[in-house]
Amino acid sequence: MGLLVVGTVAFDQIETPFGKSGKILGGAATFIGLASSMLDVKTGLVSVIGGDFPQTYLDMLASKHIDVSGIERIENGKTFFWAGRYHNDMNSRDTLTTELNVLENFNPVVPAEWREPQILMLGNLHPLVQKAVLNQLNKRPKLVILDTMNFWMDHTWNELMDVLKEVDILTINDEEARQMSKEYSLVKAAKKIMEMGPHTLIIKKGEHGALLFNENSVFFAPALPLEDVFDPTGAGDTFAGGFSGFLAKTRNYSFENMKRAIIYGSALASFTVEKFGIERIAELTEEDLNDRLDVFKSLTNFDIELD
Amino acid sequence: MGLLVVGTVAFDQIETPFGKSGKILGGAATFIGLASSMLDVKTGLVSVIGGDFPQTYLDMLASKHIDVSGIERIENGKTFFWAGRYHNDMNSRDTLTTELNVLENFNPVVPAEWREPQILMLGNLHPLVQKAVLNQLNKRPKLVILDTMNFWMDHTWNELMDVLKEVDILTINDEEARQMSKEYSLVKAAKKIMEMGPHTLIIKKGEHGALLFNENSVFFAPALPLEDVFDPTGAGDTFAGGFSGFLAKTRNYSFENMKRAIIYGSALASFTVEKFGIERIAELTEEDLNDRLDVFKSLTNFDIELD
Repeated sequence: MGLLVVGTVAFDQIETPFGKSGKILGGAATFIGLASSMLDVKTGLVSVIGGDFPQTYLDMLASKHIDVSGIERIENGKTFFWAGRYHNDMNSRDTLTTELNVLENFNPVVPAEWREPQILMLGNLHPLVQKAVLNQLNKRPKLVILDTMNFWMDHTWNELMDVLKEVDILTINDEEARQMSKEYSLVKAAKKIMEMGPHTLIIKKGEHGALLFNENSVFFAPALPLEDVFDPTGAGDTFAGGFSGFLAKTRNYSFENMKRAIIYGSALASFTVEKFGIERIAELTEEDLNDRLDVFKSLTNFDIELD
Repeated sequence: MGLLVVGTVAFDQIETPFGKSGKILGGAATFIGLASSMLDVKTGLVSVIGGDFPQTYLDMLASKHIDVSGIERIENGKTFFWAGRYHNDMNSRDTLTTELNVLENFNPVVPAEWREPQILMLGNLHPLVQKAVLNQLNKRPKLVILDTMNFWMDHTWNELMDVLKEVDILTINDEEARQMSKEYSLVKAAKKIMEMGPHTLIIKKGEHGALLFNENSVFFAPALPLEDVFDPTGAGDTFAGGFSGFLAKTRNYSFENMKRAIIYGSALASFTVEKFGIERIAELTEEDLNDRLDVFKSLTNFDIELD
């Protein structure tokens, strides 16, 4: 297994100033898997769904060479459901409904043949669930990447600190980095957070791009300036999937290669926001991606020769 | 004259969570001139000061090869004075005092021998003052750059639109771009603003960097992630001075060269915020600047080879 992903497979219902999505496929693992599939990486999802989850969605994921055999179906349960409404600026949103459903008692089981993944991507879940997955592996992956959010900092701080000690790379947003470190400066925040376990940190700043830190270096990847952000849902997960997928494909975990990986993640995320949910990322071609990577090059690359 | 700068030379009094500055040298033209002086460009300032302005400040500027003979001294007047207090996040501030003093009746006179500058930088002033300077020139400069702010949009919209028609490059911040265009998306805002006159637009996003637009292209320059921002006063003007100074030095007005110019501007601005007022930028060496440019390279440059 190149990339083992643990995270939600869900229903989303989204309202934006541009319209309403109806009940559509969502979930962190879904976006991560679809992004990683663009990199031709053997990707397996560990998740849970209810009896109401359409087989067509699973077939679609499988058609992208995503292994869905680690997704447990609980026939008499209902799939995790989230509904939200974005404000006019598309940067803030209200959660209208959160129905945990089968996620409430999610007890992830990593299939026996997946227990030596190259990279493990622990999606935003209860830290004890993330830890339980780590404990099932036969040996430590080359890279363990963890995503989390303010909710787990508020309610399960000790458990989060415990799992964080076993993580290589943490991905969080800027406000969460400030909350976690109690530092306003993101540079100071990064230093404090890297003392909690991860040797590398990605701070996601939404429309303002992302920062990649390790002990000695920092790299900045911009977000693509867009005419319209149609639906930001899943952009952060797409970013994480592109990042981890690129590293799994290239099997090079140097900081220089992580720079490339973060640009792949940013490029893929710039597609996700163009349509509702997974619509755009699911129809993406390799040519689309390469064209977008060229745009990122011209957006940020410059040549200054110094004496 | 390589770079003709029209703008304020002033006293600032700044409070930050780190301390109080006392009454120190400030003003847009001061920062622009000091930044430009790092590029070995023949720079002249057109401004106005009162009888209370110390000769030592003028001597310091002159020692940096900035021509101060265009700064009018009104002996029985007082120098423009601004006092402000930054909040803990260093991103927002309260103005405590604004005393326009001699600026109230500022009637700029461009010295006869400066009337054919290569680049004209119109600092943030009343649009009629900016226009009056343009009208005094013997011929159109290679490049006219204008800075403005929300105050002039609120109070002198028609005059601003009038001078904007004669401008090549406008520099404003993100909120001002949104106000000016009535568009939230900065890409849409840029398109609308470039229909108002300037063929090129720089949108400054403070700690989130800056965007450079022309009709066909967009470039993004990050701000340097810093442990501490000590005093943001003058960062935008330093940026503008570095940008225009680099273009005046290289005499190349292509979009590719503007990319380099915006990186020079960002690098210089990253010094200004390290100390109060002009303190850091006035003591800067060429080696400091080159080292910082190297940091910007490693912060943003990546190599991705596509098939």
